[in-house]
Amino acid sequence: MEIETRLSSRRVYEGQVLNLRVDRAVLPGGGEAVREVVEFRGGVAILALDDANRVLLIRQYRYAVGETIWELPAGILEAGELPQVCAGRELEEETGYHAARLELLCRFYSTPGATNEVLHIYLATGLTLVGPRLEAGERIQVIPTAWQAALAMVERGEIRDGKTIIGLLTLESRQADGQK
Amino acid sequence: MEIETRLSSRRVYEGQVLNLRVDRAVLPGGGEAVREVVEFRGGVAILALDDANRVLLIRQYRYAVGETIWELPAGILEAGELPQVCAGRELEEETGYHAARLELLCRFYSTPGATNEVLHIYLATGLTLVGPRLEAGERIQVIPTAWQAALAMVERGEIRDGKTIIGLLTLESRQADGQK
Repeated sequence: MEIETRLSSRRVYEGQVLNLRVDRAVLPGGGEAVREVVEFRGGVAILALDDANRVLLIRQYRYAVGETIWELPAGILEAGELPQVCAGRELEEETGYHAARLELLCRFYSTPGATNEVLHIYLATGLTLVGPRLEAGERIQVIPTAWQAALAMVERGEIRDGKTIIGLLTLESRQADGQK
Repeated sequence: MEIETRLSSRRVYEGQVLNLRVDRAVLPGGGEAVREVVEFRGGVAILALDDANRVLLIRQYRYAVGETIWELPAGILEAGELPQVCAGRELEEETGYHAARLELLCRFYSTPGATNEVLHIYLATGLTLVGPRLEAGERIQVIPTAWQAALAMVERGEIRDGKTIIGLLTLESRQADGQK
């Protein structure tokens, strides 16, 4: 079995959105290595399409990268929360829209070399406006964007958030498969 | 200006592949927030296509997620290293192939909510086998995979690594645009 077995683990930090632990592991070929692991709770992103085939993009300042970027609405799982429930909640909180239908589009590791983060992307349809409820410190601008215009923003490199690129290109790929 | 201004910064950890700092920031609307930031050096992934239109996928155990996953060859920038140079170096080290041509396919933030990681994905063509040179602790299996089979692995959720999904779907999307 090609696995690495934990020898020891030191919890360096426990915080609001992440924890950090530094482990020592035995390698399958013998020898040892240090493994730095950022623990996230996992999260969701929502590709919400309205009746005019526009996708709800948001503009949000991201402190870690020091700029305002385009993203899909997204959020972190609360303790014990199912991803689909989280997706419905975050879509309403960030955009003000309730989705009649939520369907899992894909699930992936954002950075498996150093974090355990799993992101679930949901396709949300049947939208009705119920009004946003932003959390303290959240400043989000919602911009409904024509589907082809959003794909062009990926193509031109204007959308630079990984989960947003994955959501948009996954749906594009499925639609292309459907047309074959 | 909708930016958050750093008030203070505490360096919690400085490690091999990442650092962690915990800042306090002033929000644009007033008030303060804690911002946990994982600092990465940035990295590259390589979508290498051989003359038979096969993509070089690798299988590698990832300690942070506790499983062996499918990925594109990838690596972390060395100090002062240009991304394109890193891409050529990592492709040779991990797969044993030298690429005559390297072209930037896309560039994105893997997790902008909590890290500053920027990943560059290169399309590599004109491959010649020169022999792999794995680093200590690296155990990598290289599996040339037919292009359509690799896309089907994304579609079925068998490829779960974010950068690998982005590389494959970005090239698929470009090829589809070229056929219009």
